[in-house]
Amino acid sequence: MNFGVVTRVLGILLIIESIFMIPSLIISLYTGGSDTYGFLMAIFIGGLIGFLISRKKDYNNQISPKDGLAIVSLGWIIASIIGAIPLYVSGSTVTYIDAFFEIVSGFTTTGATILADVEGLPQGVLFWRSLTHWIGGMGILVFTIALLPALGIGGFQLYKAESPGPVAGKIAPRIKDTAKILYKTYFVITILNILFLLMGGMNIFDSLVYTFGTVGTGGFATKNNSIGFYNSTYIHLVLGVFMVLSGVNFSLYYSLYKGKVKEVLKNEELKLYLGIILVATLAIGINLFMTSYSSIGLAFRDSFFQVGSIITTTGYTTVDFDLWPSFSKGILMVLMLIGGSAGSTSGGMKVVRILIMLKVVKREVMKIFHPRAIVPVKDSGKTVSNETIAGIYSFISLYFFIFVFSTLLVSLEGIDLVSASSSVLATLSNVGPGMGFAGPTRNFVEYSQASKVLFSVLMLLGRLELFTIIALISPRRWRGDI
Amino acid sequence: MNFGVVTRVLGILLIIESIFMIPSLIISLYTGGSDTYGFLMAIFIGGLIGFLISRKKDYNNQISPKDGLAIVSLGWIIASIIGAIPLYVSGSTVTYIDAFFEIVSGFTTTGATILADVEGLPQGVLFWRSLTHWIGGMGILVFTIALLPALGIGGFQLYKAESPGPVAGKIAPRIKDTAKILYKTYFVITILNILFLLMGGMNIFDSLVYTFGTVGTGGFATKNNSIGFYNSTYIHLVLGVFMVLSGVNFSLYYSLYKGKVKEVLKNEELKLYLGIILVATLAIGINLFMTSYSSIGLAFRDSFFQVGSIITTTGYTTVDFDLWPSFSKGILMVLMLIGGSAGSTSGGMKVVRILIMLKVVKREVMKIFHPRAIVPVKDSGKTVSNETIAGIYSFISLYFFIFVFSTLLVSLEGIDLVSASSSVLATLSNVGPGMGFAGPTRNFVEYSQASKVLFSVLMLLGRLELFTIIALISPRRWRGDI
Repeated sequence: MNFGVVTRVLGILLIIESIFMIPSLIISLYTGGSDTYGFLMAIFIGGLIGFLISRKKDYNNQISPKDGLAIVSLGWIIASIIGAIPLYVSGSTVTYIDAFFEIVSGFTTTGATILADVEGLPQGVLFWRSLTHWIGGMGILVFTIALLPALGIGGFQLYKAESPGPVAGKIAPRIKDTAKILYKTYFVITILNILFLLMGGMNIFDSLVYTFGTVGTGGFATKNNSIGFYNSTYIHLVLGVFMVLSGVNFSLYYSLYKGKVKEVLKNEELKLYLGIILVATLAIGINLFMTSYSSIGLAFRDSFFQVGSIITTTGYTTVDFDLWPSFSKGILMVLMLIGGSAGSTSGGMKVVRILIMLKVVKREVMKIFHPRAIVPVKDSGKTVSNETIAGIYSFISLYFFIFVFSTLLVSLEGIDLVSASSSVLATLSNVGPGMGFAGPTRNFVEYSQASKVLFSVLMLLGRLELFTIIALISPRRWRGDI
Repeated sequence: MNFGVVTRVLGILLIIESIFMIPSLIISLYTGGSDTYGFLMAIFIGGLIGFLISRKKDYNNQISPKDGLAIVSLGWIIASIIGAIPLYVSGSTVTYIDAFFEIVSGFTTTGATILADVEGLPQGVLFWRSLTHWIGGMGILVFTIALLPALGIGGFQLYKAESPGPVAGKIAPRIKDTAKILYKTYFVITILNILFLLMGGMNIFDSLVYTFGTVGTGGFATKNNSIGFYNSTYIHLVLGVFMVLSGVNFSLYYSLYKGKVKEVLKNEELKLYLGIILVATLAIGINLFMTSYSSIGLAFRDSFFQVGSIITTTGYTTVDFDLWPSFSKGILMVLMLIGGSAGSTSGGMKVVRILIMLKVVKREVMKIFHPRAIVPVKDSGKTVSNETIAGIYSFISLYFFIFVFSTLLVSLEGIDLVSASSSVLATLSNVGPGMGFAGPTRNFVEYSQASKVLFSVLMLLGRLELFTIIALISPRRWRGDI
């Protein structure tokens, strides 16, 4: 392993994290919260370690895939270890593992919480945990666009791997422009979201916090009842729409910016993503109206919000969906598994993988009647290679194995299988709330320390490890394909 | 479509079915049961239709894959329609759909029942429904060895597709011999099972019935408490071992017969199959002992029996496993999904497919550190082609899509998700009992008529359609590969 470059990158990461904590420190000083000391401590420790390990200059510039894996995995773990300090030191959590869980949940944009009474927390802590969502959402762009090209992996190709876009040969000159556009998009969506919330009468603090949770598809709230606190169709609608926007492949905004409207409209992942949202909203809305809701409008409002929240793996709630009928809950669990689009801030298996799976099945069924026909699998008009298909299937298999194995481990807590499996899905897919024991009105604090560590690992796996493993598996694939 | 050959084959099938009903008629006459008229009617209708439609001689001998699909699907549906007559006419079931469900469950070797009180049924009906298990188990051999070669698919290769065996070029001269050996094996296992049960003090009628349910991996019982009726470790052990034996790829018995012990010991599917049984038995046994059992011996006895029963998709029960802790129930649900070995009488996705999935994941993980290495996926020393891998993944995807979609439909009954999903798994994987609403002490009669039809379709899909679809997808694959 090339320790020189690994420690240098990790050091820079810690310094950046310390800088990101300064606004929370200022809020803490301004509100006179109990969390000032915690932020000072975290900034000092993070900054000092970062400074010390990033000083070394005479390092070897060569980064192997192994180094890349080490940087990405260790980076997020170390950032979470330091980021958890303010929560623990301020007494917001009882144990340090709880604080670690909470910040991993933040950085991975999961939004699963171990805090029962968030309304009683210091403002600095509330701001910090929500800011981690925004950093985490941006992190994907950071790692894929800034870091991975240095690994010789072609960050942009990695990022765009499963969606149509520029031809492979033209990557290099465009990475910089595209990165700029993507960051601009992230900022523009963030600012628009804040403005829309302010216009709805939300205060500036909450507007910021809920925007971080929305565009990062995280889900941390400042109210115990999440979005249910706001009895306003306007706010539900704004957040619902912005969640859905944040679950779209960000490269499509680049295409839009370039005026390629037709290309965007032809994008099959987008169509399937919106199609799933439409069908799920209708199915749940009708199911709710037939069983418990007296107003069809309210049924569809709640249905749309929850479908948008769950498929984008945000996890905000307006109602306790754990009380919904099995059919609606079952659909939500399927949405947890699917997740949003590739190249968005959302988690899950990603819609494009489901798309390719469906196409492969369709091809095999077609072959029944045309056994000798050679039918290529196409995504938005471009042929998907067998190697990419194998990669997708490996990812899905691994996802499934991790899901099943973790569910069995968690079921040892003596809880029912729906609670266990939905808790695993909620963390592995970076959703946040699950069903039953981990339902919207409950939280993860009741789980054992061992399970909390497992869930932290699952959140990281869902957000990074599994992703980067697949990314790092075969660099050539990502360069040459699609 | 070639109607001539389709109707002729279906006609012969009906005549064979009528002949198979004669023993039940004799039992009915002998015991003076209320089912005599039902059997007379079914034999007459089945025989007459069979005679009429199979008479045509001047048919075209060419069978397309489409014809094959029609024969296989229609064959099992028509056989179930006729086979359900005695149950309905004798008043054993309330509706004809219930009777149809029961016989589909029999022929597909599922063992899911809609009968609450089997002890009150006429003997002829009891014998007939269990005999359908034995016919169904044999049916797999019939279709793969007798019928499919006629379709130009190479039945033996289909049957052996995913296990080591003779070289592709040598199929033709061996099919006949191998078919004989397989039938002999089925008969030998059947007779041994009967003898072992008789030695345990079971009467001849029950010995026959439970043997049919065991070697066909079906699961219909003549007692309301299934095997729990027999408080005998000997009987539990005999049935447990014979279930496990019936879940082994039958071609391995052929290899054993040929003295190829080493080849059998090297078979990776067999090793994984036995490994899963061992690990699952240990895990559940320990879990039971830690939570509710006071005797470790009893915990392992019940654990082994249930693991053997569920992984082979037989579905016999000695205890109400629905009362077991979530961890044990979770393992059983995973076993339902996996199923037994390819080329056995059991259902599910089959162990060999899990084996290949694991190997593909392993290969992709290996590629992280050796990005340019070309690592072939091997099964028992033989390279698995990319086409076969794609076929396996399509099968698994389709299985998964059907599972999820059906679970959502069934959840509309207003039952919990564990009940809904386990009922779907129990029928799609041809297991029999599920959890909760469809648990061992409950049965499928409480479901709506619509759900019963869905479950019937799932049983057929699990046993035949999905299987034959995959088989018929690409004949060339099965001929040339492995």
